[in-house]
Amino acid sequence: MTVADLGEFGLIAAIAAKLPPSGKTVVGIGDDAAVLTAPDGRVVATMDLLVEGRHFRRDWSGPADIGGKAAARNLADVAAMGATPVALLVGLAAPGTLPVAWATELVSGMAAECARTGATVAGGDVSGADTIMLAVTALGDLAGREPVTRAGARAGDLLAVAGVLGHSAAGLGLLTAGLAAPAGPAGPAAPAAPAGLARLVAAHRWPRPVYEAGPEAAALGATSMIDVSDGLIADVGHVAKASGVLIDIDPSRLEPGADLLAAAELLGGTAASTGPAASTVPAASARMGQPGPPGQPEPLGWMLTGGEDHALAATFPAGTVLPARWSVIGFVRQGEGVLVGGQPFHGRGGWDHFG
Amino acid sequence: MTVADLGEFGLIAAIAAKLPPSGKTVVGIGDDAAVLTAPDGRVVATMDLLVEGRHFRRDWSGPADIGGKAAARNLADVAAMGATPVALLVGLAAPGTLPVAWATELVSGMAAECARTGATVAGGDVSGADTIMLAVTALGDLAGREPVTRAGARAGDLLAVAGVLGHSAAGLGLLTAGLAAPAGPAGPAAPAAPAGLARLVAAHRWPRPVYEAGPEAAALGATSMIDVSDGLIADVGHVAKASGVLIDIDPSRLEPGADLLAAAELLGGTAASTGPAASTVPAASARMGQPGPPGQPEPLGWMLTGGEDHALAATFPAGTVLPARWSVIGFVRQGEGVLVGGQPFHGRGGWDHFG
Repeated sequence: MTVADLGEFGLIAAIAAKLPPSGKTVVGIGDDAAVLTAPDGRVVATMDLLVEGRHFRRDWSGPADIGGKAAARNLADVAAMGATPVALLVGLAAPGTLPVAWATELVSGMAAECARTGATVAGGDVSGADTIMLAVTALGDLAGREPVTRAGARAGDLLAVAGVLGHSAAGLGLLTAGLAAPAGPAGPAAPAAPAGLARLVAAHRWPRPVYEAGPEAAALGATSMIDVSDGLIADVGHVAKASGVLIDIDPSRLEPGADLLAAAELLGGTAASTGPAASTVPAASARMGQPGPPGQPEPLGWMLTGGEDHALAATFPAGTVLPARWSVIGFVRQGEGVLVGGQPFHGRGGWDHFG
Repeated sequence: MTVADLGEFGLIAAIAAKLPPSGKTVVGIGDDAAVLTAPDGRVVATMDLLVEGRHFRRDWSGPADIGGKAAARNLADVAAMGATPVALLVGLAAPGTLPVAWATELVSGMAAECARTGATVAGGDVSGADTIMLAVTALGDLAGREPVTRAGARAGDLLAVAGVLGHSAAGLGLLTAGLAAPAGPAGPAAPAAPAGLARLVAAHRWPRPVYEAGPEAAALGATSMIDVSDGLIADVGHVAKASGVLIDIDPSRLEPGADLLAAAELLGGTAASTGPAASTVPAASARMGQPGPPGQPEPLGWMLTGGEDHALAATFPAGTVLPARWSVIGFVRQGEGVLVGGQPFHGRGGWDHFG
């Protein structure tokens, strides 16, 4: 059964049937618009686009993974303002030949990730298109807290992160090198990855941000916050620019775990970061097709420049006592830009979606 | 200058520079998420997707038109709940070769349509893609009113509309027949349309819904409301189904204006509804490529089945005194479905986005 067989309204009904009810939804799917609770009197709102071949590959990720990841990146943006997610609106543009099951599993993945935060999928739109495109809007509630923007970091603050760094990038490296089992039936046969490597691939397919750390940071007095979507250096750079400060990341505080070290060893033993599997996704493969910068071991490169784990990075006044899930990884000083161990970083610092 | 030349962040900055500030925006473009006021304690939220070649053609509509129309369809959804629009989030996926000016004019059109309602463009996302796709989320405020859903129509109610019907469909018919000047440099030469016909083409390119009629209807006690996006019969059919009633449209109350009559006469004198210009947009041309149903003069067919003018259709308790911009066009009875003059309507009743 394809989405064209079912038609627009049948597809919407099939999707709606997969979704749990929510006490935060006043009016849900099936009207001109949804109505959500906004008890704070303000609403946090963000949107992301995901385009097949640029943001995901169906042979590398299953529909639930793709949905879970699409939800995670938007829910993390809400958390990075210090807010709690309330609802997603989901736009799905797809060819009429798309199996209905793919669409409903996509939305089930979104709903599962939402459930980690108390949010639900409350509305959206479907359309025909030649390639799959997702648009996801997330709404959130500040519960009386002030929003934590990128602009409040001050000299003397600590820089801390909650969540993992570099796992998604390492997982993408493994997929690009053909060293992980593909998710979809269309993928080439590949050896199954050992457990640690499989965790990295899973982290790439479906990251699990620590959403509750966002409101927690706001309550602790965070002066700025951002979610790490484009890479730590790039995203901390946005904070430095918006705040008019210099942020110095201490690489000795970024300790790659055993999984990252194992992945680096495996990839170092292959010439595979630019393997043939990468050729159909120029943007994604360009991101990981480059080896780490000169003098940087690959795991640290992943942690400094890999995005999509959606760790939260925040600055706090010096002396703030942070819960265990926050790790101090640097300091804010007068000046501008980002340094790593006091030195300019010469690797790739960003990720341009038109690159 | 293309969007690839400017890059993701440069494009966002160029777009942001086109946008006026708003007192409803607590945090605007440039952070992880926007923060908007939601004084009611609830927020109305809706999303639409628009795909090039399916929802718009660059040779038929300029970028400001496309942006204005994309905004209008979402703002009308907010109004149809009885709410006042607050903000749009805009996702733009496009090839890197897209001129920056096209993107900024698109957003300027959105901002201009927003300004008719007091809303602004407060955030969004940009991405590369092989074809242009827009995702627009609109947020709105109910100001203490209960949302007007599709489900409250009761036997005995009046059916009334605010705004025009059939103008966009007639304009599309003129464009499909090659009888209107194209908007873009890529279009073939075509004779300039007389003023009345030009108004219809303009209505197709950039509809102007009567947004303030939405909150007005809610305040007058409307029992149900919908915006006419898929065609009057189709959309009133959604109300009839959700409310469990029969709605009988009185065709004698649908008086085509002089512009519609002139367009019908002109198109009747050509064999052009399925001209060669239609071939690259199968869905859009299928919509108007069909002549009116047997026995229905074309102008009435446009009014009954043409969408995209985004008139508001609402039901009110019998005896409600309606302001002049509302026209009573039918009545609600016990039963199910939609009749036209007491008879089943045998034309096309709907519009399936995977069709």
